[in-house]
Amino acid sequence: MPLDYTYRVRQPHRTGQLAVVAGTIAEGGGLIGDVTTINVGRDSSIREITLAVEDHDQAERIVGLLNGLEGVEVLWSRDRALLRHEGGKLVIGSTRPIRTVQDMRDVYTPGVARACVAISEDPSLAGELTMIGRSVAICTNGTRVLGLGDIGPVPSMPVMEGKAVFYHQLANVSAMPILIDTKDVDEFVETVVRIAPTFGGIHLEDISAPECFEIERRLIEILPKPVMHDDVHGTAVVTLAAAIVACRHAGLTLQEEVVGQIGLGAAGYGIAALMADAGAKRVIASDPNPLSHERASRKGIEISDLETVMAEADVVVATTGRAGLIDPSLVREGQVILALTNPYPEIEPEAALQAGAAFAADGTSVNNVLGYPGIFRGALLSGAEDITLGMKLAAAEAIADLTHESELVPDALDPNVHERVATAVRDAAIEDGAAH
Amino acid sequence: MPLDYTYRVRQPHRTGQLAVVAGTIAEGGGLIGDVTTINVGRDSSIREITLAVEDHDQAERIVGLLNGLEGVEVLWSRDRALLRHEGGKLVIGSTRPIRTVQDMRDVYTPGVARACVAISEDPSLAGELTMIGRSVAICTNGTRVLGLGDIGPVPSMPVMEGKAVFYHQLANVSAMPILIDTKDVDEFVETVVRIAPTFGGIHLEDISAPECFEIERRLIEILPKPVMHDDVHGTAVVTLAAAIVACRHAGLTLQEEVVGQIGLGAAGYGIAALMADAGAKRVIASDPNPLSHERASRKGIEISDLETVMAEADVVVATTGRAGLIDPSLVREGQVILALTNPYPEIEPEAALQAGAAFAADGTSVNNVLGYPGIFRGALLSGAEDITLGMKLAAAEAIADLTHESELVPDALDPNVHERVATAVRDAAIEDGAAH
Repeated sequence: MPLDYTYRVRQPHRTGQLAVVAGTIAEGGGLIGDVTTINVGRDSSIREITLAVEDHDQAERIVGLLNGLEGVEVLWSRDRALLRHEGGKLVIGSTRPIRTVQDMRDVYTPGVARACVAISEDPSLAGELTMIGRSVAICTNGTRVLGLGDIGPVPSMPVMEGKAVFYHQLANVSAMPILIDTKDVDEFVETVVRIAPTFGGIHLEDISAPECFEIERRLIEILPKPVMHDDVHGTAVVTLAAAIVACRHAGLTLQEEVVGQIGLGAAGYGIAALMADAGAKRVIASDPNPLSHERASRKGIEISDLETVMAEADVVVATTGRAGLIDPSLVREGQVILALTNPYPEIEPEAALQAGAAFAADGTSVNNVLGYPGIFRGALLSGAEDITLGMKLAAAEAIADLTHESELVPDALDPNVHERVATAVRDAAIEDGAAH
Repeated sequence: MPLDYTYRVRQPHRTGQLAVVAGTIAEGGGLIGDVTTINVGRDSSIREITLAVEDHDQAERIVGLLNGLEGVEVLWSRDRALLRHEGGKLVIGSTRPIRTVQDMRDVYTPGVARACVAISEDPSLAGELTMIGRSVAICTNGTRVLGLGDIGPVPSMPVMEGKAVFYHQLANVSAMPILIDTKDVDEFVETVVRIAPTFGGIHLEDISAPECFEIERRLIEILPKPVMHDDVHGTAVVTLAAAIVACRHAGLTLQEEVVGQIGLGAAGYGIAALMADAGAKRVIASDPNPLSHERASRKGIEISDLETVMAEADVVVATTGRAGLIDPSLVREGQVILALTNPYPEIEPEAALQAGAAFAADGTSVNNVLGYPGIFRGALLSGAEDITLGMKLAAAEAIADLTHESELVPDALDPNVHERVATAVRDAAIEDGAAH
């Protein structure tokens, strides 16, 4: 697994010294990212240099090379991701500080009682007088975390905190990770239902298939608030947006093409289903697991094998977790190929293009963070009780329309993108009659 | 119920005008709090004036009086507590903003996977690399909220948010309200147990007796992390601190006195039990509900009636919810009386002093917010698996020691107070062997 490694380095403070250090790092095969000056003394400076390296061994070799330079000392070196996780990534704070006695009277005693009474008399005021109307629970049992599999709830927390960080920064939604310690579908569902009054929406995350489908279905049925498994629908929305843009680049129109989906896990099923709903001419899919076929067939997705999918599809999406699965010989002239497995795709975009693809991309830019913040924000803004197909299609179209010329998707850190997605989703909710 | 009412008033901008407005408010019986200037024009100014009034009728009468003044117009008037609740009081945000690609690599993909793997290999790292180590769930089912009774989970949210606001501001703890939609003890307990991995501690709040005792007992037994029902133990700690200080003022020593507890609900039982544990010579208590007697008796608390308690106790604490319950004729010469029911106590301090009490106070300053932030902060800092008696006594002693001369308790908004309480609790946890 590639790493970001931070080195804290003391070096002589003179012209040309950073060039020497950088040259030595290059010799060791490290790719330099940030260089941050920590301290400048009369004779020496201390800097933190972050590198992308292939593994811990390479990271340690570079420490040796640097310590071999005259006057240079590596004070410490550490995985930068772990440094950045120290103390956790989330904080639950107040919208305003409590400074005065009047503040305490307002937000605590005796004022708080009047807010409680007001909500008790008119429950719809909860959306206005509490955080509920702009909050989401990110619920997981940690059974299918990233590519790591079933690592359990607590080790999945950094992922959930990361999701919440984007909710806050990009869409002004307060999202709380909720780690649920059960693999049982009934127990999971009843736990979420019991704590659901706390939140305006339920974001399901990193739950293994097929349980995730059943959990989502039942929660949607029971709860009068937006529920969405991001690995299924969030991924599908962002992939649909990327596919629309890729088709534009390749001179195709999604609605006139055959879409092929390779891999029918949670994400793959979600993508294939949304492609069908978005009006693709045909959707054909392959997966070695026969259990995945029935669900897809019910949705009108044709089941086939990898070779047939590659031969018949104009637009191919792959989400298998298997690097290098697609042999370049299978690529058809003029095809659009999105090989989304991270960090090593089913086929490298260069290889696909060389084999005749009209457009090819990997999963580095097709990031869920483009979808869920705006989708839930729009759902909460509209007061929708469900996340409808119309809301998902509106989100995908908004993302596609915001993409700059040569790109596959827009910049995920641009707050304007998320505001536009939220507005599109809100409008679609009202149009669909999902808002109450 | 007394109200804080905010009036937005347009008035001529000239010397003496505020005096006229203030005088008119005084005529209407309103007590002025904050005056905030919103806008100053050439001829007129707009201010927000907040008053304490007895009820909505009085608030409206004052609007009429003000509108009767020449050139004065009340633009709007509203319950200030509701204004201050708009949008809710909590926000879940990130410890640092995500600005760059490197930030995304660190906290999201691919860096986050390394944090997950690290915790998976060494679960104790969760306290360091996630928010779990400094977070608390504030769990309630809303069955006994303030003096309002069983209003249910959602209407109780403003109270839970208020508690969380103080956790953040005073003790740097991230606290998340969790509203649990069940009155069943088994369901409540199993729900908290299933989501407990998300948090470092469990703060129980506003759950009716006797269920609250059973819920707390079982959660303490099951969970290897701090669990505390604040209405029982937090109230008891702060009341014990106030009683220690009150005894000092009256020249008594708590350990040599008879303590009387009037009312054996959740708070009353907790106070009586902690007084016994703190070494009071005898503890006698009264409550009309016979169900409360058995629990108290098991703890060595003698059950009696109100008159006997008043006759025999040197220190009397009342938590009955019944204003004016204690007739001044029952007060004994030299007694310490803490009549804690809010906003109208069992006996007014002035009346108690006139009847011969050596010291008397009501519940306005005996605020739970002095206790729970530092108690949980200290428990989390020490890694304690329980909140022991030693930790509670240490918190009470710290609060008492921080009290300024003539006061009953220290300033709850002073962060130094909470830091000192946290340190005392942490040290006690280590001494008690509760820290792992």
